[in-house]
Amino acid sequence: MKKTMGGSLSERVAEQIINIIKEKGLKPGERLVNEYELANQLGVSRSTVRESIKSLESRNILEIRQGAGTFVSEKQGIPVDPLGLTFEEWDGKLALDLIEARLMLEPQIAEAAAIRATSEQINKIMEQCLKVESLINTNQEYREEDMKFHAYIAEASGNKIIEKLIPIINSSVSTNIDATHNELVKHTVKNHREIAEAIKRHDYIGAKTAMVEHLHDNRMLIILNYNLNNE
Amino acid sequence: MKKTMGGSLSERVAEQIINIIKEKGLKPGERLVNEYELANQLGVSRSTVRESIKSLESRNILEIRQGAGTFVSEKQGIPVDPLGLTFEEWDGKLALDLIEARLMLEPQIAEAAAIRATSEQINKIMEQCLKVESLINTNQEYREEDMKFHAYIAEASGNKIIEKLIPIINSSVSTNIDATHNELVKHTVKNHREIAEAIKRHDYIGAKTAMVEHLHDNRMLIILNYNLNNE
Repeated sequence: MKKTMGGSLSERVAEQIINIIKEKGLKPGERLVNEYELANQLGVSRSTVRESIKSLESRNILEIRQGAGTFVSEKQGIPVDPLGLTFEEWDGKLALDLIEARLMLEPQIAEAAAIRATSEQINKIMEQCLKVESLINTNQEYREEDMKFHAYIAEASGNKIIEKLIPIINSSVSTNIDATHNELVKHTVKNHREIAEAIKRHDYIGAKTAMVEHLHDNRMLIILNYNLNNE
Repeated sequence: MKKTMGGSLSERVAEQIINIIKEKGLKPGERLVNEYELANQLGVSRSTVRESIKSLESRNILEIRQGAGTFVSEKQGIPVDPLGLTFEEWDGKLALDLIEARLMLEPQIAEAAAIRATSEQINKIMEQCLKVESLINTNQEYREEDMKFHAYIAEASGNKIIEKLIPIINSSVSTNIDATHNELVKHTVKNHREIAEAIKRHDYIGAKTAMVEHLHDNRMLIILNYNLNNE
């Protein structure tokens, strides 16, 4: 979004490469013209182009496949550590902070999804709901698919910023809680269903309150796991 | 937070460099040992170390100052485009999405700040409030200081995730709205005061509702600017 016209030569060349991707409408997985052509086109050395490409790779905008060329990354520029938590120590407090942030956002997101979701988006949410359910019922690891369930609801909110934000919040920290075999996991099945079905019938109050209940249960799980009862 | 033990050699070396920074407790602005020592310590070539350092520079974790060495970045690992909006077109819809996301979060953040702010944090918020006010009153550009006002409130919420999130949301997109000389700007002065003073007296309802009013005014400004009235 923001264009920095200052910065080093390789930074400016990186911005120009982004513009080329935009202008050509290159999609994730599509191939960029080679180093040699880029250097010619932009009037800089190949080593500068190489440096710019490396930095765009670190930003998850490009992907270098050895011997095959340079491609637009499937990661769509979403950075490794978007919240800048690299130097934060992970503990019970941070786990509670994360769930508090989700409690601020996700009930309202479920509400917006219930109002705005298209029938395609509703189908996607219902299918993902069933997918998570069957993983839970067969005692399999389900967290990744669970995060997708929440991401699809964010998508259905019709808000681009929210759509980007939720996967970032939910994946930037790993709670390391083994939730399988836990009593509270049973509620996840019930709550996910209630959220999905409320969105389906455009019941925005039901969607919102079901999400509160769901996140409340997650919060209790964190309190139990980190033994935060006495704080 | 998440450690990827897979990935290329230079990615693994980058993770090891992060661990060195953590173990030594190096702060932003402090200097990292030189390339030669790092290569020895980690048992890899200097060119691998150089590549890893470059990638950590792209992630805003390190800063290379020509001739002076490599330092822990003041940007604290917060990425250039945290929300991955590089390929989104900026328009009125995205501006409204942004303000909707802020409306979901910031009233609750002001509420939490009113409950949890320390007297030091309250002073910081009050001072920043006056700073923005004097910029507005003298018709100067105030957006950057305005964002800091909101960032200080997020800090006072006592939630680390929220503290990281708000600067990211508020700075990742630039609205390009010239708000100076506008009628609605007068309300900013009034609203900021009301938010800051409610936090000061730990009036969490006042802080929350003042923030709603403030963001509502911002939203109206966007609707007027982008002529979204007829949508």
